[in-house]
Amino acid sequence: MSEPGQRGRPRRAETDERLLVAAAELLRERGPAGVTIEAVASRSGVARTTIYRRFESREQLVEAVTGRLVDRPLPPADLPLDGKVRWVMNQVAALVDEDLGRGAVAALIAETDPAFASSLRQALAKRLDDLRAQIQTDIEDGAVAPQVDAEALVSLLMGAHLGQVLRTGTPSRGWDDGVVALLARALRPA
Amino acid sequence: MSEPGQRGRPRRAETDERLLVAAAELLRERGPAGVTIEAVASRSGVARTTIYRRFESREQLVEAVTGRLVDRPLPPADLPLDGKVRWVMNQVAALVDEDLGRGAVAALIAETDPAFASSLRQALAKRLDDLRAQIQTDIEDGAVAPQVDAEALVSLLMGAHLGQVLRTGTPSRGWDDGVVALLARALRPA
Repeated sequence: MSEPGQRGRPRRAETDERLLVAAAELLRERGPAGVTIEAVASRSGVARTTIYRRFESREQLVEAVTGRLVDRPLPPADLPLDGKVRWVMNQVAALVDEDLGRGAVAALIAETDPAFASSLRQALAKRLDDLRAQIQTDIEDGAVAPQVDAEALVSLLMGAHLGQVLRTGTPSRGWDDGVVALLARALRPA
Repeated sequence: MSEPGQRGRPRRAETDERLLVAAAELLRERGPAGVTIEAVASRSGVARTTIYRRFESREQLVEAVTGRLVDRPLPPADLPLDGKVRWVMNQVAALVDEDLGRGAVAALIAETDPAFASSLRQALAKRLDDLRAQIQTDIEDGAVAPQVDAEALVSLLMGAHLGQVLRTGTPSRGWDDGVVALLARALRPA
């Protein structure tokens, strides 16, 4: 199915959506190596020439899809501390297990796809800047202890789920209750 | 170079050592898929028939090598709290980056080698039992807050380094100072 793209903006947005959905599916199912212009064309039914009109290269397409996956909601500002910790941990778990998929996370750790790794890390850094800013605001408001290093907290929030995956394969339901309690304890002002 | 193994215990121990060193090198360089009887024979210079006299199968060899890599020292009981946290984090970093190598960690996350994953997880669980017991003793001695969930702490200690690898590729020197301080804060009795 080819897509002429001659009906202006709405049609263009719809095609972009189809391309990004196809690319995200391929990433999850096959890892980053599976996200090629060829595979996206075949999965989406959008012609290669049309894809190249939207994205100059495979790298640009990968950048668009990783940017979208990483762009997740921050916790609502009025959640209590343990609710915020749990919110972020749930977002990390969904990103790792549902959106990226384990193959993509493995590729990131083994550095098998530099273009993918750099796109994802840039998108993550941008998102985590916002999270750090929220933590900083909570420190200024007295909701979080002033000694807390926001950078370190962000690493722990990212890593908790991965540590559990490494240890157990599939984290069991409720495994994170203790982690949430422990981190909330570390954050609470004395 | 073949090895007759006819000179009793010392010679046998020496051959075992050579096999396990070769298997560990292959694991680090090529990931778990690279640890085959064939490759270990070729790397160690020990004949396949001799290897099969020591290890019934590739699985047994993988079990022996993962067990040895994971068998790392626990922190000395008299270290202060932050020293213990740092000790364990350093052991995890060395295990991930130096001994297992990123390829093996990626294989574990993507579940590409079930025999390797199950050997490593069993060895880890055994080692982490000892760590949990040490944390429990510290709780009983009043050095660690009684609310601390030792299981959760162990997940965070395992995950902190991985979170940093995911975010940044190669953790920079000193990145873990904030994590150590944050975790020590969570552990300290009120």
